[in-house]
Amino acid sequence: MARELWRKAAIVGIAQSGFSKNIGRSERSLAVEVVRNALAEAGLAPEDVDGLVRFDLENTTEAEIARNLGIPNLRFFAEVGYGGGGGCATLSLAAMAVESGRAEVVVCWRARNRGSGGRPWAGTRMEVGGDQQWYIPWGLVRPVDQIAMLAARHMHEFGTTSEQFGAVAVAFRKHAQRNPHAMMRDPMTIEDHQNSRMISEPLRKFDCCLETDGALAVVVTTPERARNLKQRPVAILGAAQGMGPDHVVMANYHKERFLETPSLFAAREVYAQAGVEPRDIDCAQWYDAFTPLVILSLEEYGFCKPGEGGPFSENGRLEWPDGALPSNTSGGGLSEAYVHGFNLILEGVRQMRGTSTCQVEDAELCLVTSGGGVPTSAAILART
Amino acid sequence: MARELWRKAAIVGIAQSGFSKNIGRSERSLAVEVVRNALAEAGLAPEDVDGLVRFDLENTTEAEIARNLGIPNLRFFAEVGYGGGGGCATLSLAAMAVESGRAEVVVCWRARNRGSGGRPWAGTRMEVGGDQQWYIPWGLVRPVDQIAMLAARHMHEFGTTSEQFGAVAVAFRKHAQRNPHAMMRDPMTIEDHQNSRMISEPLRKFDCCLETDGALAVVVTTPERARNLKQRPVAILGAAQGMGPDHVVMANYHKERFLETPSLFAAREVYAQAGVEPRDIDCAQWYDAFTPLVILSLEEYGFCKPGEGGPFSENGRLEWPDGALPSNTSGGGLSEAYVHGFNLILEGVRQMRGTSTCQVEDAELCLVTSGGGVPTSAAILART
Repeated sequence: MARELWRKAAIVGIAQSGFSKNIGRSERSLAVEVVRNALAEAGLAPEDVDGLVRFDLENTTEAEIARNLGIPNLRFFAEVGYGGGGGCATLSLAAMAVESGRAEVVVCWRARNRGSGGRPWAGTRMEVGGDQQWYIPWGLVRPVDQIAMLAARHMHEFGTTSEQFGAVAVAFRKHAQRNPHAMMRDPMTIEDHQNSRMISEPLRKFDCCLETDGALAVVVTTPERARNLKQRPVAILGAAQGMGPDHVVMANYHKERFLETPSLFAAREVYAQAGVEPRDIDCAQWYDAFTPLVILSLEEYGFCKPGEGGPFSENGRLEWPDGALPSNTSGGGLSEAYVHGFNLILEGVRQMRGTSTCQVEDAELCLVTSGGGVPTSAAILART
Repeated sequence: MARELWRKAAIVGIAQSGFSKNIGRSERSLAVEVVRNALAEAGLAPEDVDGLVRFDLENTTEAEIARNLGIPNLRFFAEVGYGGGGGCATLSLAAMAVESGRAEVVVCWRARNRGSGGRPWAGTRMEVGGDQQWYIPWGLVRPVDQIAMLAARHMHEFGTTSEQFGAVAVAFRKHAQRNPHAMMRDPMTIEDHQNSRMISEPLRKFDCCLETDGALAVVVTTPERARNLKQRPVAILGAAQGMGPDHVVMANYHKERFLETPSLFAAREVYAQAGVEPRDIDCAQWYDAFTPLVILSLEEYGFCKPGEGGPFSENGRLEWPDGALPSNTSGGGLSEAYVHGFNLILEGVRQMRGTSTCQVEDAELCLVTSGGGVPTSAAILART
């Protein structure tokens, strides 16, 4: 599909709260604030908004945002499920609304006090239903346990090493050091990674993302409207979802291809929409709740062959400024903040505006991905 | 907007379970069954599906449906909130996906065991948060209490009578008598309505919808694909959402225009999309969780002036075959089944296929609405 066919929606405003372990304010207050600030950054007002898109896990509704900001009418509102898989899907929904004329100015947001909030697995008892009954009682209790299964299998199948996981963490920490908003800015070496304590074998502390309180929003509108606003528009060249066969959320092991994740399917769609190939991508923001997810994504998004994600991550290939594929240039979920991957979208926008603190020179295309352990989504953003 | 511009998506298959107070099966099993059966009715198989859309209240996820039916990959999945406001919004999302190429065959469904399920207000204690804290502790506990406020205000402002509410219930019951799938088929008179017990003043038992276990699904695809399937396609001429200003879900009273509901805003959009006016509509399927919602909708969808919904509903105007606007021709939520208004969509499809048990002669356009006490949606279906 020709690239121009899909250049139908643009990101024109972004905003984020601070990121911290305990922000001391409600998710609702943060949500209202970032939506308002993203509009202001774009040069828009709440009266201009006619669409809102959210994660289904979001604790604040569209109606609450609209009322608190004085949005006169929402002609479009929708949600997407599956936690960290939903980030780029919100962009896809917003872009669809704009493309189809259902709405003209759509804001997507995520506000989550995960740093100070509860952890369902922290007690001695938890109730599980649905698919969770098939794996949680057998010890795959926390997300880190569930992804550790994928990591162990990747090591078994391909000889991937913990040091290769560490190379991902070290690269992203290096980028976080230049980002004043990142939560983790201390230098990290592979040795530091190897010395960090085991959380769920084979995953160590520094293989795991942060737990963050914070909120972020992006404003999507038509290319026509985008031209007359305050910021340089960023084109949504592709925004796609994928699930694949026989999917079990967070425990996608009951299938012939054990390591095949929904990312493989989102990748196919997003490249087709954008009319580009992996080699055209200048930088990437990978969903990085855990380091092995980055290694799997490098394979499924076509930057290396299956099984080669471990070696690919070494030798600084993911590092700015000299790596072949500078990745998670704000520090990502591992070192900037973990807000269900939504901060990756904002860093993608900054790269395409030319305002990242690890700006990739002459970058024209940025891939942003969402979580591959669940039904997922991806976007390709383009400089305009 | 020209009508042809919006004739971009079609409904090609429908299916429903039986309706009962206690169906004796899980919602998940019902959901899988109706999705499969709607595909079969269309002449499609699970392998053809690449999109699913659901209510956010749905207890079964897209991943569970996909895995249990063997759908190889979902390229599109999304949700909409606000309970009974979401019915036609699922059609809008499916149509957008199809129009934009995000997916080609999208199934929308609703499976809900409300007849046998719990009622959150039935205990002596309930926990409320969010906006509910502002009205539930003051006695607006059940949906019937919340809508009774609108009913009482309509009576106060316009002299609307309980007998006019009754005329709605009597008309829809008349239609249910011809529908073998309707739960309530005993004849009903205005006197029966007046003698039914008060549930929440001014609303009587027969002003209230049923509590039903049941499930329904519709299949949406492109007009091109629709042409070669088993059923006569039904065009989605318009499918739109609306919220309006200062909205409080189920307690939308804190505004200057007390009786203005989100329906007014969905109406504006859906007519604009379809390029038609109220006088072009041949029959309507009104969201009828409570009779006064129909009277409000008659006004907000432009079939009479504000305040005149009560008199409009009298003299058989809503009755098939001789009324000016045959409405809820399957019996609706009041007498067929209450499955969050999703059964209204299926009856709209039957009218446009020419297969209703109260078939409106030569009907070309059917309006279907979703709940107006919440952020809502509406669709205009067209015969092809």
